[in-house]
Amino acid sequence: MTKALILLAHGSRDPNWRAPFDALETTLAQRQDTPLRLAYMELCSPSLEQVVADLETIGIQQADVLPLFFAAGRHLREDVPSQIEALHDAHSGIELTLLAPIGDHPAFIDALVNIIESRSGS
Amino acid sequence: MTKALILLAHGSRDPNWRAPFDALETTLAQRQDTPLRLAYMELCSPSLEQVVADLETIGIQQADVLPLFFAAGRHLREDVPSQIEALHDAHSGIELTLLAPIGDHPAFIDALVNIIESRSGS
Repeated sequence: MTKALILLAHGSRDPNWRAPFDALETTLAQRQDTPLRLAYMELCSPSLEQVVADLETIGIQQADVLPLFFAAGRHLREDVPSQIEALHDAHSGIELTLLAPIGDHPAFIDALVNIIESRSGS
Repeated sequence: MTKALILLAHGSRDPNWRAPFDALETTLAQRQDTPLRLAYMELCSPSLEQVVADLETIGIQQADVLPLFFAAGRHLREDVPSQIEALHDAHSGIELTLLAPIGDHPAFIDALVNIIESRSGS
């Protein structure tokens, strides 16, 4: 059974804010076979609700939700779990799993260290 | 003249949220000679104001402010520039330069791609 991956970003009213997330989605979509969608928690579209409805329409029954957040605060401990619970009620045909934020990955901190160190060496 | 580096994170009321930023500051402080401080835009301390006052006390006259944000939205286009303008008025002995967010760095997107791809290969 195909499992989709949803990249969940915070969202912003500023359209320029979305550029790095769009770049990420484009790069990954070219390189991965897994169905992959970018969704926003709030303030811009597509929303998580829209993306889940879309995935259900194409027959996806499982999706991991990977938060593109530095860390888990109130949004990831309260708001997003509530959204996912509501989605489970509204879209019972698709099982959603909320993953830890990408900032929890040791390689993420390593990358930040490398970027900051390369900067100060310039 | 020594230039300091201020890592500016958003901030959260959730103390667990700060863990990756603390890890980053600790790692960098062990490896860099540049005076380095972590500051939060809002909701937790040390604030940017506290950090700038502290750096001025130890004789720093220039500091770069590197936002640990995925992208520049309202916070980095409006709120933080206003904070920095107010700081220039209050602490005229230290010159602050607001840099582009770390998410604008191509290596940042590359790192996200690698983390996501290594995950789906597992």
